[in-house]
Amino acid sequence: MLDHVNIGILTSGGDCPGLNAVIRGAVMKGDRIYGVNFQGIRDGFRGLVEDDIRPLPRHDVRGLSRTGGTILGTSRIGPFGEGGGGSARVKQVMERNEMDAIIAIGGEGTLTVARMLHDDGIKVVGVPKTIDNDLSATDYTFGFDTAVSIATESIDRLRTTAESHHRCMVVEVMGRHVGWIALHAGLASGAHAILIPEQPVSMEQICGWVESALDRGRAPLVVVAEGFMPDGAEIVRDALDGFGRPRLGGVGEWLGPIIEQRTDIETRVMTLGHLQRGGVPTSYDRVLATRFGLAAIDAVMDSKWGHMVSLRGIDIETVPLSEGTADLKSVPQSRWDEAAVLFG
Amino acid sequence: MLDHVNIGILTSGGDCPGLNAVIRGAVMKGDRIYGVNFQGIRDGFRGLVEDDIRPLPRHDVRGLSRTGGTILGTSRIGPFGEGGGGSARVKQVMERNEMDAIIAIGGEGTLTVARMLHDDGIKVVGVPKTIDNDLSATDYTFGFDTAVSIATESIDRLRTTAESHHRCMVVEVMGRHVGWIALHAGLASGAHAILIPEQPVSMEQICGWVESALDRGRAPLVVVAEGFMPDGAEIVRDALDGFGRPRLGGVGEWLGPIIEQRTDIETRVMTLGHLQRGGVPTSYDRVLATRFGLAAIDAVMDSKWGHMVSLRGIDIETVPLSEGTADLKSVPQSRWDEAAVLFG
Amino acid sequence: MLDHVNIGILTSGGDCPGLNAVIRGAVMKGDRIYGVNFQGIRDGFRGLVEDDIRPLPRHDVRGLSRTGGTILGTSRIGPFGEGGGGSARVKQVMERNEMDAIIAIGGEGTLTVARMLHDDGIKVVGVPKTIDNDLSATDYTFGFDTAVSIATESIDRLRTTAESHHRCMVVEVMGRHVGWIALHAGLASGAHAILIPEQPVSMEQICGWVESALDRGRAPLVVVAEGFMPDGAEIVRDALDGFGRPRLGGVGEWLGPIIEQRTDIETRVMTLGHLQRGGVPTSYDRVLATRFGLAAIDAVMDSKWGHMVSLRGIDIETVPLSEGTADLKSVPQSRWDEAAVLFG
Amino acid sequence: MLDHVNIGILTSGGDCPGLNAVIRGAVMKGDRIYGVNFQGIRDGFRGLVEDDIRPLPRHDVRGLSRTGGTILGTSRIGPFGEGGGGSARVKQVMERNEMDAIIAIGGEGTLTVARMLHDDGIKVVGVPKTIDNDLSATDYTFGFDTAVSIATESIDRLRTTAESHHRCMVVEVMGRHVGWIALHAGLASGAHAILIPEQPVSMEQICGWVESALDRGRAPLVVVAEGFMPDGAEIVRDALDGFGRPRLGGVGEWLGPIIEQRTDIETRVMTLGHLQRGGVPTSYDRVLATRFGLAAIDAVMDSKWGHMVSLRGIDIETVPLSEGTADLKSVPQSRWDEAAVLFG
Repeated sequence: MLDHVNIGILTSGGDCPGLNAVIRGAVMKGDRIYGVNFQGIRDGFRGLVEDDIRPLPRHDVRGLSRTGGTILGTSRIGPFGEGGGGSARVKQVMERNEMDAIIAIGGEGTLTVARMLHDDGIKVVGVPKTIDNDLSATDYTFGFDTAVSIATESIDRLRTTAESHHRCMVVEVMGRHVGWIALHAGLASGAHAILIPEQPVSMEQICGWVESALDRGRAPLVVVAEGFMPDGAEIVRDALDGFGRPRLGGVGEWLGPIIEQRTDIETRVMTLGHLQRGGVPTSYDRVLATRFGLAAIDAVMDSKWGHMVSLRGIDIETVPLSEGTADLKSVPQSRWDEAAVLFG
Repeated sequence: MLDHVNIGILTSGGDCPGLNAVIRGAVMKGDRIYGVNFQGIRDGFRGLVEDDIRPLPRHDVRGLSRTGGTILGTSRIGPFGEGGGGSARVKQVMERNEMDAIIAIGGEGTLTVARMLHDDGIKVVGVPKTIDNDLSATDYTFGFDTAVSIATESIDRLRTTAESHHRCMVVEVMGRHVGWIALHAGLASGAHAILIPEQPVSMEQICGWVESALDRGRAPLVVVAEGFMPDGAEIVRDALDGFGRPRLGGVGEWLGPIIEQRTDIETRVMTLGHLQRGGVPTSYDRVLATRFGLAAIDAVMDSKWGHMVSLRGIDIETVPLSEGTADLKSVPQSRWDEAAVLFG
Repeated sequence: MLDHVNIGILTSGGDCPGLNAVIRGAVMKGDRIYGVNFQGIRDGFRGLVEDDIRPLPRHDVRGLSRTGGTILGTSRIGPFGEGGGGSARVKQVMERNEMDAIIAIGGEGTLTVARMLHDDGIKVVGVPKTIDNDLSATDYTFGFDTAVSIATESIDRLRTTAESHHRCMVVEVMGRHVGWIALHAGLASGAHAILIPEQPVSMEQICGWVESALDRGRAPLVVVAEGFMPDGAEIVRDALDGFGRPRLGGVGEWLGPIIEQRTDIETRVMTLGHLQRGGVPTSYDRVLATRFGLAAIDAVMDSKWGHMVSLRGIDIETVPLSEGTADLKSVPQSRWDEAAVLFG
Repeated sequence: MLDHVNIGILTSGGDCPGLNAVIRGAVMKGDRIYGVNFQGIRDGFRGLVEDDIRPLPRHDVRGLSRTGGTILGTSRIGPFGEGGGGSARVKQVMERNEMDAIIAIGGEGTLTVARMLHDDGIKVVGVPKTIDNDLSATDYTFGFDTAVSIATESIDRLRTTAESHHRCMVVEVMGRHVGWIALHAGLASGAHAILIPEQPVSMEQICGWVESALDRGRAPLVVVAEGFMPDGAEIVRDALDGFGRPRLGGVGEWLGPIIEQRTDIETRVMTLGHLQRGGVPTSYDRVLATRFGLAAIDAVMDSKWGHMVSLRGIDIETVPLSEGTADLKSVPQSRWDEAAVLFG
């Protein structure tokens, strides 16, 4: 590469612990080893489309590995949406800023956009971000460990109050399409039932697990992913409508009352929501995110356009974006069977 | 006191971090210094009325200072409620178990029952428990510090996600009648608005604070106690009904949308709920609860019937139960004024 | 006061969680309510003597309540030490910077210097800082709760490893002259012996407690303040010299081997050291420090020169610096007796 | 397998967060799915040699996934050591207890003993435990993540105090033979130098990194594994002897003063020691340890004698013990180079 290389960085989609560590890793190595400049693109693709870009000197990434959120801001706006202007607009803004390449940090949606930009000749490298752990092209990404960690810590706290009152506790965690957070947080906290989108068990089964735990003198603990739907759920949800109650909340809020009604056990619901996204990343996520950032600038300098970084075992690799966004990584049957031994 | 003195212990009402440390403190000192026996009354007054009582040897309180919840269980059932049997029933059960006196650990309701039992000649000593910090007879009680600590830690986490998305965050904490948890957690986390039952500010004022914070480039943070009601709230809540939506959730869930609608700032709501009750007590609460337990058995051995232990400054004292339950300790105007300087 | 009032702020002595929250509280209220300017004096009295002073606008104190350390830096240098220049030099620097008054945040040494400056006619208000809790003029100061909290959390962790190996664990905490951190952390963690400077118990007594805990199947836990010295300690320390080993470490490092030798229990030592000073302040300390900061600027505007802010019960008051630095607040006999019931 | 199958479990060597979760996972699945009985062998091979064995019913493993240490106790005693009695003695004790097979949870030493027992015809399955992450046969084992997590959290705390005083901080972490904990904790906390046994850099290089960080206005942070030895270290250590000071402490304690002397930067040392072993396991370690426990009882029921469970990517596999104990997994050059970019 030539002198005065400029690399734009953006973070897009929902925020995730570790984004700042990726930024720091890329900027530190880019500055020290490759001598390139960085440009911070504000609020994901919004900043790219609207030309909202600022210099990102090394000084600005100081101490970032241990901070949550993203100093660049994020949004869900994309260049291929209404008024986005597509690749042409992106090229125009890049030229105006003399930006040579882009490191795009984001989830399935962001990486798909990155792939489309690459198909149109834009130099882009991706860094996978998914708090839900639903990308098949990488063993894990940063954010997931922090989310599981916060969920587990929260559930530990909820258990003591449930046990004191002999109650059932239903804890709703993130996971609209896949159940990884529920599976790991449930395993870590010794849940009596883990409910995930991939496995639509029946209300009978759920209540059976709750009653079995209660019979052994435990305060039953149900960990449910937000995207879970019980087998025969239309009936369940019609019944709720029958009470004249619009469903405002998530799955936990309607599951709890049904469990209480059917098992006659006082039941409380907690939705962890945004708590799981926030705060200081775990050391695991900081290391992984830092390594991703270091590998991302390497990929840029290697001209691995249209690729994303990825974790395989304990190694960082790169894979084509087309591959990385092909499949949703859902919880396989074997992992469900492994965990289900501990239910009830 | 004679040989073979038996002291019953019960925990009643909502659970609270530190209950186990009180139990441990009383039993350890009672066993070692006074040579008395302890009887664990299950689930508060329910166990007393239903004669559900077990021996509570010193071995059972081992390691308890650092555990949340209560090993004795708790309930909201009282002897003066329907089918409770009143003081007569309590006396009968105590006689049958050769129980000489009771240490009753609980909040305003429990301590009122304890006072009534005392008025009927039953030997009882109280230990104040209120996670909300609403008892005027003691500077603080255990549980409050843990609740504030968890709320503060949670808000710290929520800020990073709010800042990444430039959102307003509304966090609902406990406090049905008083705003102490909101005040302290809000101060600790640098909230731009703290809303408490004692101060019914208007929606205009709230939105003004939110906009002021936003104008300075911050992600506005509103900490609201569950018992807060804005000035002119009937209108607000009628309006909600006008949308055909029954109010299922708490104050945060309807406050958030109004803020979003009026200020045009994307707003998210988090209700911390049971999280604040649970888990390992803070060191502050462990020390205070242990000291309360030690003082409670001293009060029993001093025949301070009808009294409760209390914190004044850094000293543990005893006060009559009648005094301890007389007034609700609400947030005084001076503390509100002190904090309001930092709003907006 | 007139327009363009300038208030200097400095933090002096050992750092302490909460210093930044004091700074933030004072600056926020000074800026918003009183319209005064602030000047940040770097590294305590060093910056005052060397004229190392910078503007401290409100923007700079943003988000500070939850950060450890001090953004102003600190040192142990004083104006009355060698080359300090005394009050004359301080007055000269203040005049050159048009600084009207000083808020000095520090411990016993800092507050004594502040009192001396006040005696020489310099407008100064003090904020007490002592992680050791050894100032008699205030019930507590910020930093102490965080130190106890970190010590307690650390001891919780050390217990599991000690129990797995059936070992005795000796944990050395801060407290050169007073034993408050040891007392509170020891009570909170269920220590079998708490050793503090105020109570020079014998090695026989210490080993007795250790053996008693062991006899009951526990892993003995000894929490010792760094300033503790056993009764008859000269002998102990001579004996160590007899082994030809210069004493490099603290009390824990020579106490552990003696316990091991006398009781034949494998013993491990952990010195918590600087860990206790660092990191995010607890919510308790953030609230207290913020209130101290708010009260300090009030005291300045009230011309309470030569006074310091102070906590009494749940109220913030002011007391003359001469009073505040008169006595060391040591652990009273009653608090020792209260705790000793739980030893062994 | 026949009815009344009895499986012995032991934990051996240094304790490690997650041991209890392994025990729980194996017992829960063994009881529920396979209907086998468990026998708890006390204090590792000591209990096996001395016939100190107790029943381990499912009830006893309740809630264990979130507890540190090991309920079975541990020791470093082995059957092939002095007075151990070897395989003959082990067989004798197993027969006396009608024990059919053993699950041995431990590190390199324990697994080597397990392999030797297997070679002598004893039915044994291994579970790898190494807080240092030094076993080549598994990507990670439980305990490592908790150790890195505690080290990182501790370093975060130490930074604030170092920055307030403009000091250099040297933090010694575990790692006698390999530098994994130092590498990961150093990366996570943004260390300016990471020193590991695999890379004997010179004192000049170390001091260069420290000065470079200081030049940029940072408080230099050095993370050092206990087994690190600088290039030319004999000289260094001779020099220390020259001062007449026997080296009592670890590498940090002599490295700190040398850095201070050579760079003229005030330097403080913290040795994290046993803190890294203790306490509640992270969610990562709980999940991994639970899965190892589940897989271990599967391996027993599959008669995979002489095998150990292992993590490869995200899958649990089994490998022969002979393979699992063949190589020490040290930090490869590529991982060192990756991290060294961030030094100075």
